[in-house]
Amino acid sequence: MRAGDLAAPFPTVREVTPALDAARLLAGRNLPGLIVVDDASRPVTVLPGTQVLRLVIPSYCQDDPALARVIDEAAADVFLRGVEGRTVADLLPRERRELPVVDSQATVLEVAAVMARTRSPLVAVAGRNQPMLGAITLDALLDRMLGT
Amino acid sequence: MRAGDLAAPFPTVREVTPALDAARLLAGRNLPGLIVVDDASRPVTVLPGTQVLRLVIPSYCQDDPALARVIDEAAADVFLRGVEGRTVADLLPRERRELPVVDSQATVLEVAAVMARTRSPLVAVAGRNQPMLGAITLDALLDRMLGT
Repeated sequence: MRAGDLAAPFPTVREVTPALDAARLLAGRNLPGLIVVDDASRPVTVLPGTQVLRLVIPSYCQDDPALARVIDEAAADVFLRGVEGRTVADLLPRERRELPVVDSQATVLEVAAVMARTRSPLVAVAGRNQPMLGAITLDALLDRMLGT
Repeated sequence: MRAGDLAAPFPTVREVTPALDAARLLAGRNLPGLIVVDDASRPVTVLPGTQVLRLVIPSYCQDDPALARVIDEAAADVFLRGVEGRTVADLLPRERRELPVVDSQATVLEVAAVMARTRSPLVAVAGRNQPMLGAITLDALLDRMLGT
């Protein structure tokens, strides 16, 4: 069995997608992460869901976590103030990391190794410089492995 | 709103839990990770789902990813061979990382900051050296923030 057999359709976002739309997609469909594609549908990056939260955290709280204790307000207010006017481009990682992307010939073991190494519960399937064929989630991989 | 208000019941495992049972719990209930507790129900560690895959990846494939390309067999065979005779203790991280655990008085912003910083889509709620009160998943936090 190869990655091409495991790949399933998966919603994508672009760098210009408003951050609020991206967060709604993630939350509304319980996705493990977001795949950012370019105009030719090639995967640019794969964002774990936790990184979307970076939008709502003011930088002074990242420098001094104790400050976050002081700000106690409704969850929606915290969030909406954070995402206002921002797009997916603001979420892109600054440093280059290994991208969780495999080609369609990758084996199950390769897919598992990429997920474990990149700590990404979501892997895009695409040839080099090719449009995305689909994606494999950790849940789908485990379901296939365990027959659940 | 504080973490204590957001905490919900969440299944736990122990270090002696067989790895296969832990993987089935994760996959069968689509959990974002596993919380390992001690005999007094205090959180010992929080394992992101991706780290459960470390069980199935032979160490020679981690050293040389190209070898994983050679091993093409049924997903279930790869998995079952990997987990045989192993327990959750084999999954515990070797290095000490920041644990995604917050106390019940943590604000929404603190919970979000811990998730983003530890890259864990799952945070346990517990006082210092106290039994776990519950857990907050990324989905639950986003749902609360977005009203989805």
